[in-house]
Amino acid sequence: MKYSETFKLQTSSHSQLITITSQISNIVRDNRWMNGLVSAFVQHTTCGITINENADPDVVSDLLNRLDKIAPWDVKEDRHYEGNSAAHLKSSILGSSVVVPVIEGDMQLGQWQGIFFGEFDGPRLRRILVTFSPS
Amino acid sequence: MKYSETFKLQTSSHSQLITITSQISNIVRDNRWMNGLVSAFVQHTTCGITINENADPDVVSDLLNRLDKIAPWDVKEDRHYEGNSAAHLKSSILGSSVVVPVIEGDMQLGQWQGIFFGEFDGPRLRRILVTFSPS
Amino acid sequence: MKYSETFKLQTSSHSQLITITSQISNIVRDNRWMNGLVSAFVQHTTCGITINENADPDVVSDLLNRLDKIAPWDVKEDRHYEGNSAAHLKSSILGSSVVVPVIEGDMQLGQWQGIFFGEFDGPRLRRILVTFSPS
Repeated sequence: MKYSETFKLQTSSHSQLITITSQISNIVRDNRWMNGLVSAFVQHTTCGITINENADPDVVSDLLNRLDKIAPWDVKEDRHYEGNSAAHLKSSILGSSVVVPVIEGDMQLGQWQGIFFGEFDGPRLRRILVTFSPS
Repeated sequence: MKYSETFKLQTSSHSQLITITSQISNIVRDNRWMNGLVSAFVQHTTCGITINENADPDVVSDLLNRLDKIAPWDVKEDRHYEGNSAAHLKSSILGSSVVVPVIEGDMQLGQWQGIFFGEFDGPRLRRILVTFSPS
Repeated sequence: MKYSETFKLQTSSHSQLITITSQISNIVRDNRWMNGLVSAFVQHTTCGITINENADPDVVSDLLNRLDKIAPWDVKEDRHYEGNSAAHLKSSILGSSVVVPVIEGDMQLGQWQGIFFGEFDGPRLRRILVTFSPS
């Protein structure tokens, strides 16, 4: 039994919200993490993690469109030489991790909630670190 | 003694920031959670949780007004059939949970900090899950 | 050995993103926190904490410029008497804390990640509380 496990995710386009709920719940189950808090943490700075509706896929496309308005790709004042400051901003808006309660071995997500990896400068190979701290 | 407890919150209008500090500190006290991290987690996708000033109520109204500008209700490109993508966006901007340190049985909020539930598509009956992971 | 420790930070201008990775990793090392989750939490409401790129300093200046567009200082509808609602909004956008995994005594930040304190209404003397919850 471990208290921390990594999985990789190959993203396929420049901006995506990808469900990673099953990868995380499998890690919780396989390691028999029972009661406590599980964290999913990205080790990169042009992507993020968030929880949102995992039912109508139009929610995801609306979120991506609206994030593009808040953090447009081209801002003439930007100075970062890679030109991806929009992705860095989205990373800080969504955050680098989520923390989800686990009770009796089950993540306590609500009926419509899913955990999403937010790719904002892909496609890239990403690493997500899943860590448990028991109650 | 439990390490996880739920409380319900009936919101009363469409957009609100409601102080839930006392509900959470009561759960910490009643369960004698002493040293560690307490998480408050919402099980819904059109609301969020944040920490901000709990002194001048004008801070709350300014925050709601400013969030409406960042996430306007009507965006003509939105495709989600429920028409509440603005609420989903605010949920991801604020986040679905906060994590607060507890020392000697007391949440370590600063003098002006309060924990706020953000309702963005109410009124609704909401559930908040409070979970402790000790040091 | 303690499970919680505070450090102070004197900011020097009105808006800044200041690396606090070394202060936090020193606390982790000095207290021999080995495996679990470490939280860094600000006890104020006009600043925040985020993780982002700690390599090209232009990323930081682009983030500050872009946050100013999302949360402009002067909004005529603002009512809060202190006039710093923009700082309160940035605090809720970034969040009051980050949670980082620790394995074998090392914070598991990615190659380019740093932990940043976001000052949005400085200069001020700030307090950051660092707390560990083991696996």
